Amino acid sequence: MSHFPSELLTGYRNFMGGRYLDQRDRYRALAEQGQKPHTLVVACCDSRAAPEMIFDSVPGELFVVRNVANMVPPYEPDGQYHSTSAALEFAVQALRVRDIIVMGHGRCGGIRAALDPNSEPLSPGDFIGKWMNLVAPAAEQIQGNSQMTSGERQTALERISIRNSISNLRTFPCVRILEERGKLRIHGAWFDISNGELWLMDPQTQDFVRTEPEEILPVQAIDAT
Amino acid sequence: MSHFPSELLTGYRNFMGGRYLDQRDRYRALAEQGQKPHTLVVACCDSRAAPEMIFDSVPGELFVVRNVANMVPPYEPDGQYHSTSAALEFAVQALRVRDIIVMGHGRCGGIRAALDPNSEPLSPGDFIGKWMNLVAPAAEQIQGNSQMTSGERQTALERISIRNSISNLRTFPCVRILEERGKLRIHGAWFDISNGELWLMDPQTQDFVRTEPEEILPVQAIDAT
Amino acid sequence: MSHFPSELLTGYRNFMGGRYLDQRDRYRALAEQGQKPHTLVVACCDSRAAPEMIFDSVPGELFVVRNVANMVPPYEPDGQYHSTSAALEFAVQALRVRDIIVMGHGRCGGIRAALDPNSEPLSPGDFIGKWMNLVAPAAEQIQGNSQMTSGERQTALERISIRNSISNLRTFPCVRILEERGKLRIHGAWFDISNGELWLMDPQTQDFVRTEPEEILPVQAIDAT
Amino acid sequence: MSHFPSELLTGYRNFMGGRYLDQRDRYRALAEQGQKPHTLVVACCDSRAAPEMIFDSVPGELFVVRNVANMVPPYEPDGQYHSTSAALEFAVQALRVRDIIVMGHGRCGGIRAALDPNSEPLSPGDFIGKWMNLVAPAAEQIQGNSQMTSGERQTALERISIRNSISNLRTFPCVRILEERGKLRIHGAWFDISNGELWLMDPQTQDFVRTEPEEILPVQAIDAT
Repeated sequence: MSHFPSELLTGYRNFMGGRYLDQRDRYRALAEQGQKPHTLVVACCDSRAAPEMIFDSVPGELFVVRNVANMVPPYEPDGQYHSTSAALEFAVQALRVRDIIVMGHGRCGGIRAALDPNSEPLSPGDFIGKWMNLVAPAAEQIQGNSQMTSGERQTALERISIRNSISNLRTFPCVRILEERGKLRIHGAWFDISNGELWLMDPQTQDFVRTEPEEILPVQAIDAT
Repeated sequence: MSHFPSELLTGYRNFMGGRYLDQRDRYRALAEQGQKPHTLVVACCDSRAAPEMIFDSVPGELFVVRNVANMVPPYEPDGQYHSTSAALEFAVQALRVRDIIVMGHGRCGGIRAALDPNSEPLSPGDFIGKWMNLVAPAAEQIQGNSQMTSGERQTALERISIRNSISNLRTFPCVRILEERGKLRIHGAWFDISNGELWLMDPQTQDFVRTEPEEILPVQAIDAT
Repeated sequence: MSHFPSELLTGYRNFMGGRYLDQRDRYRALAEQGQKPHTLVVACCDSRAAPEMIFDSVPGELFVVRNVANMVPPYEPDGQYHSTSAALEFAVQALRVRDIIVMGHGRCGGIRAALDPNSEPLSPGDFIGKWMNLVAPAAEQIQGNSQMTSGERQTALERISIRNSISNLRTFPCVRILEERGKLRIHGAWFDISNGELWLMDPQTQDFVRTEPEEILPVQAIDAT
Repeated sequence: MSHFPSELLTGYRNFMGGRYLDQRDRYRALAEQGQKPHTLVVACCDSRAAPEMIFDSVPGELFVVRNVANMVPPYEPDGQYHSTSAALEFAVQALRVRDIIVMGHGRCGGIRAALDPNSEPLSPGDFIGKWMNLVAPAAEQIQGNSQMTSGERQTALERISIRNSISNLRTFPCVRILEERGKLRIHGAWFDISNGELWLMDPQTQDFVRTEPEEILPVQAIDAT
């Protein structure tokens, strides 16, 4: 394609000559047998927060929904199109994932817009405005904190929003039932794009705690030998 | 977190000891300056079709929306939550991406369900059924082809759906206007998970054509010596 | 002959000074002992789809019938001239071939004509129209797919026609009996003249699958060094 | 394909690594622009008499019909399937070939069967018997020549049959008209498979004359250097 972004074609060739070759048998098996990912990740569209990179995953491992600000709306079976709800239902009921991770990240543009009092609609349709209404009540409360810095309010709301999305997950009967039976576990995570840190939500306190990477070893496969 | 999937923690450590180290400066710069991805990719949640893997991308490169069957609904500014529309609006109007790729793939579970006459709702809410209604008229036409194999009908509908999503993209005024001004280009792509092939949609004919990997050479053994 | 196409005379001289010299002993043996080809190929007359080129064959290897759109009509012992049926009978019963390949190809003019609603007879006799009636029912079904591109309908019908010809092969008692006894195998193949790809029909699913040229390696330049 | 004849897959790989690479641009152009072969060849299915080999042709050069004993039946617009007539009509009216060659060869199995008084039908349908009826009157006359050897009778009938097919070509109005206008030329040829000799029919006398290859040079490309 003369139009197709050339850097993506270059990337695709790198893929075919590198990672794809390493994984060729796996791709073929996945094609023949179907996918059986163990985890659903709800992540942000943000170009700096791709779950497959952060978790160094292999094909077949993660079923990934990405929307602005990694939000899960509440359960509303009203016959409308609900893409995040549809993906959730498919992952839980059809693919029978074992874990759901709602993963937010620092510097989230959607969260920033929700905290911006001067935020203008991006179009007459204002889709992003309506979408971010999911976090509007929380944003309003946070905006009142004049003694926190804007960065602190940003991080606070990112984490509050993850917790709200997790609560919304539990409004889906299939999620609630499977979690109660011990068949499904729900996790919150927050990725700091500035330094690669991964913070996981403690299920008891709901605090976000940085993972302690006591022994981070360079993986031999990454060094060319 | 004792609960957090251990394979993902292992993957995260690989990331921190490998790719993150290579890209550390880039992550920091992206955190400070914000993201400026050049491309929006609408991809499927499928664990075998992650754009970042297929295009070997770096952080900051791709803004990625993922939903079941990589679909773009038509423009409907009705005040409802529309996560894909919100992400699209954000990418085009706020981030000013230069390219949009609608990327489908082979063996898509959503498309298979749309072609399955015996498909049952996965829950009373039937979110996936409603979501896949976006492709129902096309599925009906394809189902009539008794002389095509089920695999051929599947591939045909995957590609028709990409074309329909591209048409739906153009119902968004911001997309249409920017495309007419030459500021935005729209592409269709289809990834064959069984063998890594990438097929790109010819903008004139709308046919999907396999990319020519020019630097793939036959083994010398084939020449008789 | 002053009239005989000079490029063919040049080609013949190339043959005599090249390939014929290499194969001279083989030609002589074949003349003395008779031919014992192992495979019958039903191929199209198309100048871009010659089996001997595509399979790099040697004299004595392939018994080749070529007609427009590589079709096998159904068994009809009605005393009429049936040149394809005669060739089939000769190959199976007299030469005892071990394999039959029905090989179609992309951009087939006969198939295109069958899909063209405005197709006019080429002569009052309309031989090509009558001949292509063999594929008319299938063409009608495919033409209904307005959401497929004309290229997609073309490829679909080329492959459906190969499958129909294979079914027609099995209406010949000699073919059916020998296949049941394991003495004869039937194969479908489709050659993409635009890029040399060979697609083989999977006997279970009847899908056409691109051959995996295992010894095709990516260029080293793709590995980052 | 686990079943597909392995020697043909090997041949195909040779093709892709050799001849196809040399001709890649030509194949692509032919795919995009369509075929415009200059010559129709009516040849025998015989595995030792492939026109592309004998004329060292390139893709796009020859439109080839192959049936048993390279025969052209007389013009009979009776609504039946006539594959050779259909191919002829397509070549002359649609592709507008400039030359037609009826090429026979020595040791032709069909001609041998026509001369064999003890010839039995190969099947109840006896397709080959009916097909060879095209040459039965001539065969009957030749069989009376007890003082000719069987080899001489064979060669005589092969050449008579070529002449009869050429006469039958002229019963097709489109052929006759274009030949009269000087737009189409008809040639007879006979290939001796035992020694590679090509004999061309003199249009005046209708005798077959061996081509004089005064300077047969080995083509440099064939020698590996």
